Amino acid sequence: MERADYRVWQDKFERLRSNKVFETVVIAIILFSALVIGAKTYDEVVPYSGLIDVLDYAITLFFIVELTIRIAAERRFRDFFKNGWNIFDFIIVVGSLIPVDSAESMLLARLLRIFRVLRLVSIVPELRVLMGAFLKALPKMAYVALFMFIIFYIYGAAGSLFFREVNPFYWENVAVAMLTLFRIATFESWTSIMYETMEVYPLSWIYYLSFIFFSAFIFLNMMIGIVLDVMQKESSAFDKEQGVGESADLDAIKDHVAGLHEKMDHLTAHINQLTEQQRKS
Amino acid sequence: MERADYRVWQDKFERLRSNKVFETVVIAIILFSALVIGAKTYDEVVPYSGLIDVLDYAITLFFIVELTIRIAAERRFRDFFKNGWNIFDFIIVVGSLIPVDSAESMLLARLLRIFRVLRLVSIVPELRVLMGAFLKALPKMAYVALFMFIIFYIYGAAGSLFFREVNPFYWENVAVAMLTLFRIATFESWTSIMYETMEVYPLSWIYYLSFIFFSAFIFLNMMIGIVLDVMQKESSAFDKEQGVGESADLDAIKDHVAGLHEKMDHLTAHINQLTEQQRKS
Amino acid sequence: MERADYRVWQDKFERLRSNKVFETVVIAIILFSALVIGAKTYDEVVPYSGLIDVLDYAITLFFIVELTIRIAAERRFRDFFKNGWNIFDFIIVVGSLIPVDSAESMLLARLLRIFRVLRLVSIVPELRVLMGAFLKALPKMAYVALFMFIIFYIYGAAGSLFFREVNPFYWENVAVAMLTLFRIATFESWTSIMYETMEVYPLSWIYYLSFIFFSAFIFLNMMIGIVLDVMQKESSAFDKEQGVGESADLDAIKDHVAGLHEKMDHLTAHINQLTEQQRKS
Amino acid sequence: MERADYRVWQDKFERLRSNKVFETVVIAIILFSALVIGAKTYDEVVPYSGLIDVLDYAITLFFIVELTIRIAAERRFRDFFKNGWNIFDFIIVVGSLIPVDSAESMLLARLLRIFRVLRLVSIVPELRVLMGAFLKALPKMAYVALFMFIIFYIYGAAGSLFFREVNPFYWENVAVAMLTLFRIATFESWTSIMYETMEVYPLSWIYYLSFIFFSAFIFLNMMIGIVLDVMQKESSAFDKEQGVGESADLDAIKDHVAGLHEKMDHLTAHINQLTEQQRKS
Repeated sequence: MERADYRVWQDKFERLRSNKVFETVVIAIILFSALVIGAKTYDEVVPYSGLIDVLDYAITLFFIVELTIRIAAERRFRDFFKNGWNIFDFIIVVGSLIPVDSAESMLLARLLRIFRVLRLVSIVPELRVLMGAFLKALPKMAYVALFMFIIFYIYGAAGSLFFREVNPFYWENVAVAMLTLFRIATFESWTSIMYETMEVYPLSWIYYLSFIFFSAFIFLNMMIGIVLDVMQKESSAFDKEQGVGESADLDAIKDHVAGLHEKMDHLTAHINQLTEQQRKS
Repeated sequence: MERADYRVWQDKFERLRSNKVFETVVIAIILFSALVIGAKTYDEVVPYSGLIDVLDYAITLFFIVELTIRIAAERRFRDFFKNGWNIFDFIIVVGSLIPVDSAESMLLARLLRIFRVLRLVSIVPELRVLMGAFLKALPKMAYVALFMFIIFYIYGAAGSLFFREVNPFYWENVAVAMLTLFRIATFESWTSIMYETMEVYPLSWIYYLSFIFFSAFIFLNMMIGIVLDVMQKESSAFDKEQGVGESADLDAIKDHVAGLHEKMDHLTAHINQLTEQQRKS
Repeated sequence: MERADYRVWQDKFERLRSNKVFETVVIAIILFSALVIGAKTYDEVVPYSGLIDVLDYAITLFFIVELTIRIAAERRFRDFFKNGWNIFDFIIVVGSLIPVDSAESMLLARLLRIFRVLRLVSIVPELRVLMGAFLKALPKMAYVALFMFIIFYIYGAAGSLFFREVNPFYWENVAVAMLTLFRIATFESWTSIMYETMEVYPLSWIYYLSFIFFSAFIFLNMMIGIVLDVMQKESSAFDKEQGVGESADLDAIKDHVAGLHEKMDHLTAHINQLTEQQRKS
Repeated sequence: MERADYRVWQDKFERLRSNKVFETVVIAIILFSALVIGAKTYDEVVPYSGLIDVLDYAITLFFIVELTIRIAAERRFRDFFKNGWNIFDFIIVVGSLIPVDSAESMLLARLLRIFRVLRLVSIVPELRVLMGAFLKALPKMAYVALFMFIIFYIYGAAGSLFFREVNPFYWENVAVAMLTLFRIATFESWTSIMYETMEVYPLSWIYYLSFIFFSAFIFLNMMIGIVLDVMQKESSAFDKEQGVGESADLDAIKDHVAGLHEKMDHLTAHINQLTEQQRKS
C-alpha cells in the first residue's frame, strides 16, 4: 500500500470518527453493554447465559473495531496515547481480550466490562465538563484530605491507646480505630460507641464531640468550599465567553476606559499642534 | 350570541380573573380542599363521610367554574394551553371528573385530589419564583444526576458481582444493589453492611469508603454548587433591577464612562472648530 | 418632684445604662442566673433548694431594678417599648413575678427563668448581629418552608392513603405521616420503613427516593443558599464600610469617573470661553 | 568562644535550617515517627517492643537536635518563641523528655508522641495555608458556637425540666440533656427519643422539630457560610496577586481612570497656557 493510499484511508477514518451518527451508535452500544452487564446480575437470565456470552463477544468486537478506527484516524500512532481518555479506553478494550482461564481472571474480566460504562463520560461532552471540574478541584481536595488524614491518625492513635480495652472491635489498632472514626464522622450509631467508653472514661465525650466538630463541620465545609469555588469560576468563565455577567461588564468598562485614553491622547496632540500654530503666528 | 356580546363577557371574565378578591377566594378554596384531603385520612371523620363527599363535590364544582372563567378570559381558546401551569390545572380539574367505579380509579381519583394542593404554587407569586429557580437548576442537575447514576451503576454491578453470596438481600442484582448504595449514600446503617462483607472480603472497606467519598462528598457538593449558582444569579438579577449591588454599580460606571466618551467627542469637535477659526483668521 | 429634678435623675440613669461596668455586671448576673437554672436540674442540689430559692429571688430583684433603670432612662415611657428586645426583656422579668400556686404555673415560671438566658443575645453585640442576619433571612426561609410544607403535605396525604394498612404507627393520618416524612428527611432509619412498604407495594421505593431527593437535596440546598446569600451581603456591606473589597473598589471608581466628568465640564467651559475671546478679537 | 565565632556558627545553622534536604529529612522522620506510633497500637509488634523503644529514643534525639539547630539559628533566643508553631514544637519535644515512672505519666508521654504528627502541618506549606484559613474563620465561628451554646442550654434546661421523669438516661440534668441534644443534632436515633417523650407529652414533637430546625439548618448553614466566606476571600486574594479575576480587573480599571485624571490635568494646564498666550497677544 502506498503512502497516498494510506492518507486517503486515514481521512476517511477521521471523518467517520467525528460523524454524529457514528458517535450516537457508539453511545448506544455502550448503553447496551451496560444493560448486558446489569442483566448478568439477575438469576432470571441464567438460562440465557449462552445468548449473553454471544452479545458480550459482539460488544467486545465492536469496541475493538471502534478503537482501531480511532487509532487509524490519528496522523501518528503515538498521538492517540497523548489523551488520557484514549489510554483509559485502550486498557478497557484490550483488557477484555485477556483469556479467562481461572476464577481470578474471570472476576477481573467482569470488572473490566463494568468499567466500560465509564466510557460514557468520555463521550458525552456535558459529563466531560463535570469530570473536568472534578479533576480541577482534586489537587486542593487532596490537601484537605491529607489534613483530615492527620486529624484521623492522631485521633485514631489516641483512641486505640485509651479505648482498646473497652472494645477491641472498634479500637484494636490504629487502622481499625480510623475506620471507626470514619463511621463516627458519618454519624452512624456513634452514640452507642461513645456511651460504651464513657462508662470507663466519663470525660471521653470531649474526644467524640471535638472529633465530630473537626471532621463533620470543618472538613465537610472545606470540601464544599473547594467544589463551590471551582464551580463558580467555571460558571463565570462561561458567562464571560457568552458576554454576560460581571466579568464581561468589567471587560467592557476596561475597553471603554482604554478608548477614552486614546481619544484623550489624540486631543492633547491636537491642542499641542494648535499651540504650535499660535506661537508661530 | 353576537361577537360584540362575547367580547364584553370576555372582558368581564378577564377583570374577574385578575381581581384580588377572586384570587384570595381561590387560594382559600385550595387551602380548604387541602384540609378536606387531610381530614379524610383521619379515622375520626368516618361518620361524617357524607359531609366530606358533599364538600368534595362543591370544591370540584368551584374549580370547574374557576377554570371555565380563566379559559373564557383568554382571547383564543388555545392561548390557555400555552402556559404549563394552565395545562397542569386543567388535568387536575378534569381528572376529578372521571367516574369512580373501581378500586384503582378510586385511588387515582384520590391521588388527583391530593395534587390539587400543588395549585397553590401556581397562584402564590413567591412560590412561583422558587419553582422557577428550581426548574432553571434542573438541566444542570440532570447531568450531575446522570454522572452519579453511572457511578451508582458501576458500584452496583461490582457490588452485586462480589457481595451477592454474602447477603442476597442487599446485593441480589444490580437494581437491589443500587438501592442499597442509595441507602449507604444517606449513611443509613451502612457499617453493618460493610462489617458483613469485610468478613469475606477484608479489603471491601475500600469499596464503601470510596463510594461514600464520591456520592456524599462530590455529588452532594455539586448539587449544592448548582443550586447556589442559580440562586445567586437570581439574587443579583433582582438587585440589579432594584438598582443596588455590584451589578448595578457596574452598569452605572458603564453609563458614566459612556457619558465621558460623548463629552470628549463634543470637546474634540469644539477644538477642531477653534483650530479651523484660527487657521482662517 | 419638679420636672428639672426628674430630668437630672433621668440623665443619671441614662449614663448608668450605657456604663461599661453596669453592662458587664448585667452580663455576669445573666450568666449566674443561667448557672442557677442549670444547677436546679441536678439532684445533688436538692438539699440546698432553700439557697437556690434565695438566689432566684435576688436575681429576679436585680432584673427588676435593671429594667426600672432602663425604663427610667428613656425620655418617654412608651419609647422603651419601641424596641423588640425591650418588650422581650419586660415579658421575661414581669413574668417572673406571677405568683406560683399550681403545678402548671410552676412549670411556666421555670420556663420563663430558662428564657432569661436569651437576654445574653440582646446584650452581646456580636450575637445581636448574628440574630439580625438570622431575622433577615427569615422571610425568604419562610417561603422555602411553605414550599416544603406543600411537598410534605402532598407526600403525607399520599403516604397515609397508600401505606396506612401497612403500618398505622407511621402512616395513620396525614399528621403522623408528615412526622414520619420529617424523620425520613433526616435519614433516620428510613430504610426499615421503606422495606416494610416495599413488601406490599414493590415500587414504593420511588415514593421514598423522590421524597429524599426533594427534601434533602432541594430544600436543604435552598436553605443553605438563602443563609449564604444573607451572610455574603452582610460581609460585603461590612467590607464596604471598612473601605476594602470589590464594592469599595467600585465606589472608588465611581467617584473617580464622576471627578473626570467634573473636570471635563470645567475644561469645556474653559474652551468655550477661549473660543468666545478669539471670536471677539 | 568569641562573638565572631558564634555568628559564623549561627549562619551555618540558619543555612542548614532553610536547606531543602534538611527539611525533607525532617518530614521523613516525622512520618517515620507517625508509623512507629501507629505500629505500637498493634499486638503483633509486642515481641519487638525493645526495637520500638530504641527507635523511639532515636526519634526523640533527632527532634532535640533539630530543635537545637532551629533555636541556634535565631539571632536571639527569645525570637524563637515569637512563632506559635515553634512554641508548639518546643512543648512536644521537651515533653518527650519527662521521665516515665507511673501509669499516668506513661499515658501522657504516649499522647505527646502522638501529637508529634501535627508537626507535619507546621512544615508542609499547603497545610499551613489551610490551618491559617481555619484559624482566620475561628473567631467568627466562636460567636456562632456561643449562639448555638445558648440555644443548646435553653433546650437542655427545658428538656431536663420536662422529660427527666420520662427517661433519666437522656434527660437527668442539663449537661446530660445537652449531650442528648448534640446527638439529636446529628440525627442519631433521635426518633426513638422523641417517640418516648411523645407518649407522656404528645406535643413534644414541637420541641424536637424546632430544635432540629435551629441546630441542623441554621447552625450548620452559618458554619458553612463562614468557612465559604473565608475561603472565597483567600481565593480572590490569591487571584489578585496573580493578576487575574475580578479584583485584578477592578484594580486595572482604577489605575486606568487615575491615568485619565492625570492626562486631563495635563491637558487643562496646557489649555490654560494657551489662553494665557492668546490674552497676551
